[in-house]
Amino acid sequence: MTTAAGHTEAIRASRVIGTAVSNQQGEHIGTIEDVILDKTSNNIMFAVIGFGGFLGIGESYHSIPWSVLDYEKSQGGYVVPFTKEQLEAAPHDSIDALTKGDGTGARDKSYEYYNVPPYWM
Amino acid sequence: MTTAAGHTEAIRASRVIGTAVSNQQGEHIGTIEDVILDKTSNNIMFAVIGFGGFLGIGESYHSIPWSVLDYEKSQGGYVVPFTKEQLEAAPHDSIDALTKGDGTGARDKSYEYYNVPPYWM
Repeated sequence: MTTAAGHTEAIRASRVIGTAVSNQQGEHIGTIEDVILDKTSNNIMFAVIGFGGFLGIGESYHSIPWSVLDYEKSQGGYVVPFTKEQLEAAPHDSIDALTKGDGTGARDKSYEYYNVPPYWM
Repeated sequence: MTTAAGHTEAIRASRVIGTAVSNQQGEHIGTIEDVILDKTSNNIMFAVIGFGGFLGIGESYHSIPWSVLDYEKSQGGYVVPFTKEQLEAAPHDSIDALTKGDGTGARDKSYEYYNVPPYWM
């Protein structure tokens, strides 16, 4: 797994933001809108993917575990192992709601939905 | 410790980038230029602070452990527990060099210099 710059592990957050996301069927899913960081535990909580909408109106944001994002050089973006249907049915909300309080609500829901082992246990 | 938005733990990477950094003596140190993420371990490797220079020419970048950044609402930015002299003598380089390979070179040097317990052991 390498980043756009050919790195294997170290990735600049500013380069992650704005990167396209597709699924393994080659369908465009959305764009990385932000990465949510945990101040107290040194962990990346989740990525936020924007799924469209017009000028941000009606745009829906999904929290997705960082570890499921694989950078695919040939696609010029991240690939996630989910179908469009799985993603459409996934927990989503406004970014403010996703990062509300300590953000663990959206984090826990997304790890559970995508069946990703929690990093915090 | 709270973010600008009043959160306690969940912080948007896009809001961290560009935030001012000062020390406990109230001296302006620089600006968070980027946050370096570890793709394979779910961890935040380090923050990159820019220390000035003109139009990016001669600008010097320091890698700094994420855990030492405390957000101070009254300052509108992060505060680090180091003197200007400590920071001036700290390891620094271009951002490309800091994130070279897997980024562990710059990470290890900065944790050692600032005497911060490594998260990866």
